Amino acid sequence: MDRALEWVEDRVRYIDQTQLPLDTIIIETENYLEIAEDIKRLAIRGAPLIGVSAAYGIYLGIKNFSGFNKEDFINSFKTVSHTLASTRPTAVNLFWAIKEMEKTLNESIKLSIPEIKKNLLEKALYIHKDDIERCRLIGEYGNEIVPYKATIITHCNAGFLAVGGDGTALSVIYKAHSSGKDIRVYADETRPLLQGARLTAWELMNRNIDVTLIADNTAAFTMKKFKIDLAITGADRIALNGDAANKIGTYNLAIISKKHNIPFYIAAPLSTFDFCLKSGDEIPIEERAPEEVTEGFGKRIAPPGVKVYSPAFDVTPNELITGIITEKGIIYPPYSENIIKFKS
Amino acid sequence: MDRALEWVEDRVRYIDQTQLPLDTIIIETENYLEIAEDIKRLAIRGAPLIGVSAAYGIYLGIKNFSGFNKEDFINSFKTVSHTLASTRPTAVNLFWAIKEMEKTLNESIKLSIPEIKKNLLEKALYIHKDDIERCRLIGEYGNEIVPYKATIITHCNAGFLAVGGDGTALSVIYKAHSSGKDIRVYADETRPLLQGARLTAWELMNRNIDVTLIADNTAAFTMKKFKIDLAITGADRIALNGDAANKIGTYNLAIISKKHNIPFYIAAPLSTFDFCLKSGDEIPIEERAPEEVTEGFGKRIAPPGVKVYSPAFDVTPNELITGIITEKGIIYPPYSENIIKFKS
Repeated sequence: MDRALEWVEDRVRYIDQTQLPLDTIIIETENYLEIAEDIKRLAIRGAPLIGVSAAYGIYLGIKNFSGFNKEDFINSFKTVSHTLASTRPTAVNLFWAIKEMEKTLNESIKLSIPEIKKNLLEKALYIHKDDIERCRLIGEYGNEIVPYKATIITHCNAGFLAVGGDGTALSVIYKAHSSGKDIRVYADETRPLLQGARLTAWELMNRNIDVTLIADNTAAFTMKKFKIDLAITGADRIALNGDAANKIGTYNLAIISKKHNIPFYIAAPLSTFDFCLKSGDEIPIEERAPEEVTEGFGKRIAPPGVKVYSPAFDVTPNELITGIITEKGIIYPPYSENIIKFKS
Repeated sequence: MDRALEWVEDRVRYIDQTQLPLDTIIIETENYLEIAEDIKRLAIRGAPLIGVSAAYGIYLGIKNFSGFNKEDFINSFKTVSHTLASTRPTAVNLFWAIKEMEKTLNESIKLSIPEIKKNLLEKALYIHKDDIERCRLIGEYGNEIVPYKATIITHCNAGFLAVGGDGTALSVIYKAHSSGKDIRVYADETRPLLQGARLTAWELMNRNIDVTLIADNTAAFTMKKFKIDLAITGADRIALNGDAANKIGTYNLAIISKKHNIPFYIAAPLSTFDFCLKSGDEIPIEERAPEEVTEGFGKRIAPPGVKVYSPAFDVTPNELITGIITEKGIIYPPYSENIIKFKS
């Protein structure tokens, strides 16, 4: 399975991400409660993927409704969507997907129950397809800047495990690889939660792409010793001036890329842009629990009571970003002029 | 105990470093076999500390020799030194210290056995005292460049756990602190072996210095968000042009320090300089086993079979180094002219 989730004959199949990178366990279910539980326990993770899963979950939750009373049907829909909405309280895409499904319900409300069900399935399939298509376009546009023979460095996980499609940064790598280019990847392990080691390395091996894992602090020396052509990462939020918040360590990577004259690209769908923010200084940065650093490997690695500074994200200033790869093309500096043109 | 090892009434006392940072176990012994075993199992570690311990070990190994035959005494010395020499095959300071003890043996060979024993103890005490003094002088000289109120960032462990005295980079911090300055420290955790999290954080807390632990990749954002005045690290080998090999990640830290206009210092005794090397390009870099990255903490964190690039050290080029703090003063650029002046 080389996607995080698939829709197969009235059921979903997905990778249990809690078992990665050691075991690839595939779960197949038509039970929305199982999906809700699996979102909660992080077997399904990544904002876009959670959205897609919730949409399918709603359809699966109502598809066996056997009554004829539309009010009962609506109540059933509400129970299902409430259960799914309560899985991850801060997942924006989760609520967005549930609202999209509600819209479809409301638009179809005068139709027969079987017709409403059909429309809800179509909506879920559309949400999924749309995500796949955005990833595909990011891959296509991104591939334009990848040399025929390229060694690429990436940070954290911006691949198919987080989305319905192929990912963002990794979508570019997958597209370059599948178009016949000779691709090698260095993956930062990405402390503290090791998404690079656990997920990115696994994904790339799964797709038969040559990947080498490094500790985050090894990136600069790797750039000095080997020829690295490109750095590409995802982003969590991008301001109007191009400043980009992404997983902690991205700013670090951008600085050392600049030092070694390596182009540094961000790959992200347009939904990542926050057109209300003038600059990255306005992006709030979540601080994580100290234990993620001090006990991240299941074993305490620092003195009890030590103070820890553990921001989840950092902000890479626009001047370090060569270009931002979106599903509508690559945005280049000056960002303050060009980003706004991509607002749809 | 705020040193790694002490000599107390004909025996050594030392911290069992395998138990840090969770437990501070003090071992007290006059048995050289126990010292040899503890060097082997890394309870005693750090090149200078191993040297000091081996010198004491030799004395303890021969101190109870009760015969009168000098040849038997010499054989006993050889057995003891051979045992100690076989503990860590690549520890330069270990062999250096054993040779120093052999020299003392040879110089005293015409004296009585009790007098030879006395000279060997004196030599061991001198090796220890000399190390303490070099650390003290590095601290004194380094303190000159520390502002009255200073936030300092460091990488790996260059403190009292690795030496007979107070360390190198941390000796500067200890001296600044004890001279009444207001000192805060950010300690990189230092993947893969986490010397920063396990040892530096513990040392600084042990000396009541305000320390905050960060993942290595968080250093750049820490510099952006907070005022960092100085970066100081140790070094493993320094070339004639000032290029310095040190724990992997040091080059990374030096680049991001430069980006944030933070002075970057190396603190190291003159024995660290390799006057045969013109530049850092000639320094051989040891590559470590992949498992240190993928299974560092008793838990596998990456896919089986993943390729790993894990150099033990990197080389920071001279242009990123503001000054090199030694026991004879601070060496400033141009290093190619100035380092040679410190050759004694």
